[in-house]
Amino acid sequence: MKSALEMLRGFGDHFEKVDVGNMLPQSYNMLVFSGMGGSGIVGEIMKSYLIKNGSNKPVFSIKGYELLPFVDKDALVVCISYSGDTEETISVFEQAIKVGAKIISISSGGKLEELSNKHGVPHIKIPTGYPPRYALGFMLNACLWLFGKEEEILDLKEDLKASSSRYEEVSKDIAKSLFGYVPIIYGTPLMEAAAYRFKTQINENSKTPAYNAYIPEMHHNEVVGYTNPDINQYLRFVIVADKKEHPRVSLRVNMTIDILKDKGFNPILISEEGNSYISRLLKNIYIGDFASYHLANMYGYDPLPVDIITYVKKRLQDG
Amino acid sequence: MKSALEMLRGFGDHFEKVDVGNMLPQSYNMLVFSGMGGSGIVGEIMKSYLIKNGSNKPVFSIKGYELLPFVDKDALVVCISYSGDTEETISVFEQAIKVGAKIISISSGGKLEELSNKHGVPHIKIPTGYPPRYALGFMLNACLWLFGKEEEILDLKEDLKASSSRYEEVSKDIAKSLFGYVPIIYGTPLMEAAAYRFKTQINENSKTPAYNAYIPEMHHNEVVGYTNPDINQYLRFVIVADKKEHPRVSLRVNMTIDILKDKGFNPILISEEGNSYISRLLKNIYIGDFASYHLANMYGYDPLPVDIITYVKKRLQDG
Repeated sequence: MKSALEMLRGFGDHFEKVDVGNMLPQSYNMLVFSGMGGSGIVGEIMKSYLIKNGSNKPVFSIKGYELLPFVDKDALVVCISYSGDTEETISVFEQAIKVGAKIISISSGGKLEELSNKHGVPHIKIPTGYPPRYALGFMLNACLWLFGKEEEILDLKEDLKASSSRYEEVSKDIAKSLFGYVPIIYGTPLMEAAAYRFKTQINENSKTPAYNAYIPEMHHNEVVGYTNPDINQYLRFVIVADKKEHPRVSLRVNMTIDILKDKGFNPILISEEGNSYISRLLKNIYIGDFASYHLANMYGYDPLPVDIITYVKKRLQDG
Repeated sequence: MKSALEMLRGFGDHFEKVDVGNMLPQSYNMLVFSGMGGSGIVGEIMKSYLIKNGSNKPVFSIKGYELLPFVDKDALVVCISYSGDTEETISVFEQAIKVGAKIISISSGGKLEELSNKHGVPHIKIPTGYPPRYALGFMLNACLWLFGKEEEILDLKEDLKASSSRYEEVSKDIAKSLFGYVPIIYGTPLMEAAAYRFKTQINENSKTPAYNAYIPEMHHNEVVGYTNPDINQYLRFVIVADKKEHPRVSLRVNMTIDILKDKGFNPILISEEGNSYISRLLKNIYIGDFASYHLANMYGYDPLPVDIITYVKKRLQDG
């Protein structure tokens, strides 16, 4: 297996053309992504991307065992599991089969590939040999070739490759500011997926608790928590914002920074440029991915193993 | 204004019959709730409730300025703002008018009532004189009379009234275990809204940071964060679970408790009995509401004022 750093540096290379042939059904009335963890973030990103592009169909991202009750044969369900063995996603796949929904599956192999072959479900196979979270590019790329715009994907690829070495450096300062604290990541509406990804990357790579919340919702509750200095002292803050948010959201980002500064914090703002929304989203994610890697190093943890997840899976097998 | 404790004790009294006449349109193709903070949680609860009851229509809960792009004249949009002046909800209302959607609004007055009258939109007026989060019962009750089952609402009301004094007591131990730490609240799929409500009530009532995450998703990332004892020491954990979850979720709840105990924590499990799902959900929420009140007292904070939210609103007015 490649090193974590080699995998991170190669993120842009994941966005190679995928031949999706005539896999996409001619019509469907809603689109449901199913996946967990490093595979589930793909559904969150795709939901944001499609809604931002004005999707005329409802889009859902499910993280759990249960298909939504209003999904029927007219829906398209995209099941994504890097290993192909995630039990929640297999459960959703089986329910989707039962209601006769249209399905596409994405995995590096496993039970999801087997079941897809058995049921004649179109399957996109992606490369093996990565921890799921380091294979985000492959899974997302498959979805973008299914539902995205070719010029945006090619642009994104170049943007990521051009940014890699710079992000590897600038993210060191972010890691430094988070070291020794509970990282709290705020996302604006267009950057919710990036904020959540950063939280989970700190969990898995840096083996450290981290949490996320969203602007503007956090202005209605979370900000009051800043009142308590005894508890606040354990936290450090990052805001992931898009440059092209609703103007009132951008105003709220500035206000959040001011309020945090007033409380003695120095929040970090991540808000990269990019020609397309998907490019800005992935570049913001890329910086967080690197920062979680550096934070792991600072704590002396190997970013790759995730022993407690391995333990959970073992216990689930034992029943 | 009543005291916080008086308002908490009266929660069950909010569930009086509401005459919704023929407010509900005969047909609609999807249901969208719009609201923020203490009003927004109503949409989260209703989404869970309708999906649990097997809704045959897509249900969404929006927290923000933007209506979803696939909402058109066939959708029903329910706009909820306790004050009636929440700018995000007003923005969604105006967009819903623009696309010709069917709308119902709920507020204690404010701009939302005015706009509803102007546009001939059915409006449910609820009592004034409460902070929004203490008026949850009134707002939710209105929605339940619109979309719920009468026997469940009556049952819920009795359940809440019968539990009040016991919950006021048992929640003291929960507050004690959270005092001095960052509370982390986990919710199972059916209790996501309860976990989020508890987080926000700690923020607003206890003036203290608190965060939430969800089972099973947190088994795919968050659990790895337990590796880092230097940062974990700042946290304390609560799990809000439904008694009738998917069996694999219930297994995962037990595993999460075991893992946390193994790390030296003593997580609290909130999982009340109740005849209906909505009753169990609201009872779990009720315990958290009381616990956040006690936690405020322990820190010496008045649970009612939310100065930083007041400041945010003021600055938004200034533009």
